[in-house]
Amino acid sequence: MIPFAFTIRGRDGRARIGSLHTPHGELATPLFAPVGTQAAVKAVSPAQLEEVGVRLILANTYHLYLRPGDERIAGLGGLHRFMDWPHPILTDSGGYQIFSLAERRQLDDEGVTFRSHLDGSTHRLTPERAMLIQENLGADLIMTLDVCPPARERADVEQAVHLTHRWAERCLHSKTRTDQALFGIVQGGIFPDLRRQSAEFIASLGFPGHAIGGLSVGEAKEETLAMLDLLDASLPEDRPRYLMGVGSPEDLVQAVRRGVDLFDCVLPTRMARNHAALTRRGRMNLRAAIHADSPQPIDPECTCYACTHFSRAYLRHLCLAGEILAATLLTLHNLHTLTILMADLRQAVGEGRLDVFAEEFLHDYRKIRLPEG
Amino acid sequence: MIPFAFTIRGRDGRARIGSLHTPHGELATPLFAPVGTQAAVKAVSPAQLEEVGVRLILANTYHLYLRPGDERIAGLGGLHRFMDWPHPILTDSGGYQIFSLAERRQLDDEGVTFRSHLDGSTHRLTPERAMLIQENLGADLIMTLDVCPPARERADVEQAVHLTHRWAERCLHSKTRTDQALFGIVQGGIFPDLRRQSAEFIASLGFPGHAIGGLSVGEAKEETLAMLDLLDASLPEDRPRYLMGVGSPEDLVQAVRRGVDLFDCVLPTRMARNHAALTRRGRMNLRAAIHADSPQPIDPECTCYACTHFSRAYLRHLCLAGEILAATLLTLHNLHTLTILMADLRQAVGEGRLDVFAEEFLHDYRKIRLPEG
Repeated sequence: MIPFAFTIRGRDGRARIGSLHTPHGELATPLFAPVGTQAAVKAVSPAQLEEVGVRLILANTYHLYLRPGDERIAGLGGLHRFMDWPHPILTDSGGYQIFSLAERRQLDDEGVTFRSHLDGSTHRLTPERAMLIQENLGADLIMTLDVCPPARERADVEQAVHLTHRWAERCLHSKTRTDQALFGIVQGGIFPDLRRQSAEFIASLGFPGHAIGGLSVGEAKEETLAMLDLLDASLPEDRPRYLMGVGSPEDLVQAVRRGVDLFDCVLPTRMARNHAALTRRGRMNLRAAIHADSPQPIDPECTCYACTHFSRAYLRHLCLAGEILAATLLTLHNLHTLTILMADLRQAVGEGRLDVFAEEFLHDYRKIRLPEG
Repeated sequence: MIPFAFTIRGRDGRARIGSLHTPHGELATPLFAPVGTQAAVKAVSPAQLEEVGVRLILANTYHLYLRPGDERIAGLGGLHRFMDWPHPILTDSGGYQIFSLAERRQLDDEGVTFRSHLDGSTHRLTPERAMLIQENLGADLIMTLDVCPPARERADVEQAVHLTHRWAERCLHSKTRTDQALFGIVQGGIFPDLRRQSAEFIASLGFPGHAIGGLSVGEAKEETLAMLDLLDASLPEDRPRYLMGVGSPEDLVQAVRRGVDLFDCVLPTRMARNHAALTRRGRMNLRAAIHADSPQPIDPECTCYACTHFSRAYLRHLCLAGEILAATLLTLHNLHTLTILMADLRQAVGEGRLDVFAEEFLHDYRKIRLPEG
């Protein structure tokens, strides 16, 4: 196989199913990747993730650069070996985290200077450094350094798009490893012309895949979906499209319908630590008194370890008692739910019935949310 | 099999190997039980415990009575079903926790009144209530309500022994279930005559097993060992002996040599959450800088999940990063270490070479502690 070959195996409307070849195995798309910020998906082990069916994990370059350090991880054989994950890994560029630091960072044309959230020490990230760090980490899929404007003013977004494009070129030129696929990131906020311009420019650089940045940070759903419609038409069809930071069930369904192939989000794991379960019928707050004596599992049809072994009453007890096991079991359940959802979406696309599946799913998901909430 | 039959299969000096029959399976003794205070061993799942080889778990009656409530657990089918643990469970009587509450409890001849550490509500525990609660929980091995004097004054210990004996009789008379074995608890502090008197009185009541209380709460090691020597001579040989709250490797070895069959302790699980690993060569602080770049596992000879998959460098990173996975992996390792130690002790007794094994073990354990610490 050609490294990072992306084969589209079927289509249904604008949705597609495919497989992405990586040095650590094939990925069936559309696919959701849980987040392992610090080289660990919170509250679960790699063996448990594998059992749940997870195949791609995102790790955060910003966090790992600061601790334990990318050179240390390289010295220990790279991220796969470090965290014992034999399947593909995706790293972001660190930009998103740094731009979230607000007063702790200073942007210029060449890069960004920031202070560590850990110890206040000063660091500098440039496109070239972002590549070097990600090459040290050794993920299969790596990202260009982009500028994520926290503001929604057009002038700020224009400036961010401009810098993102220059930096994408510099990332491409400084990359040295051939066993990593560098994705270019499209910015442009919610301005259709800027988004289109960004997609066309980034696509012109010939990246093996394209990431869609800045669309999960508080926009109205309609605006996000409109941007996906636009990007579906602007991005080359033959490359995987990765929508960064999106992972609620309803958003996954809607984005797959608009031709997105890859996703990551902290939602399922963070919700688990906040004691909420994702189910096909909506979100369930396991701390609610209604579950106190319930012998039922979270979802009687779910085949995850939590649902095949434990009652809502036990899970509620673990939540109220502050037991770590609550986070572990709910994380396994939530990731299993998203894994099954993605498999169902792939099957629906393959069988040409995505719209029916999506409408039924969204109907059930919304219908039952309130009583369980 | 006769329920709770205890068969001694071999002896070496005063140590013995045996098997204890319970409604949830045979237990090979000597055996260590990890603590699942709130119906969960902290940071690990029942499936992981089973994989490590754990076969007996202790749960705390005081905590479960307060939350989620023993009647609730009974309504959900009992503790085994509630926490999904198919193997034997042991519950304490709640006395130890209540006597640790200091100003929050008031003792009288009939029982003890205390205020909940959760919400300050007032509760009363009597020998009869302790039996009822433990029958609701449904563990295989249950304990009489004893008085654990926090003080070491002889008069206090004498009074505690006196009440412990009266309460043991009341527990025995109020017990109704036949599928639970009630152990009588011996008190007496570090006073040889009181210990002997307590052992003889408790033994006279005909319990199927005997627990040794009040010997893990800060006494000097020599005093504890002297009490075990004395109790070995005073307690009937044909019943299992359970030393409550003891679980450091060196203490397990010394107590097995003195005829003890069962143990429980928070030590391995609490140490794990404090980022210390128990090994045959001593305790290892995984936060230490010396491990920062080490590709070695905690113990190259250990076959646990943590040691067969992760480096000290990765574990140190998880500890410093505050990842829950650090607690999980170190808990699995520490419990595996104690499980293997107990299996080795059983084998050494069976082969009549316990003294040689014990001396070698204690030599290695002490020798390497400092450089790793």
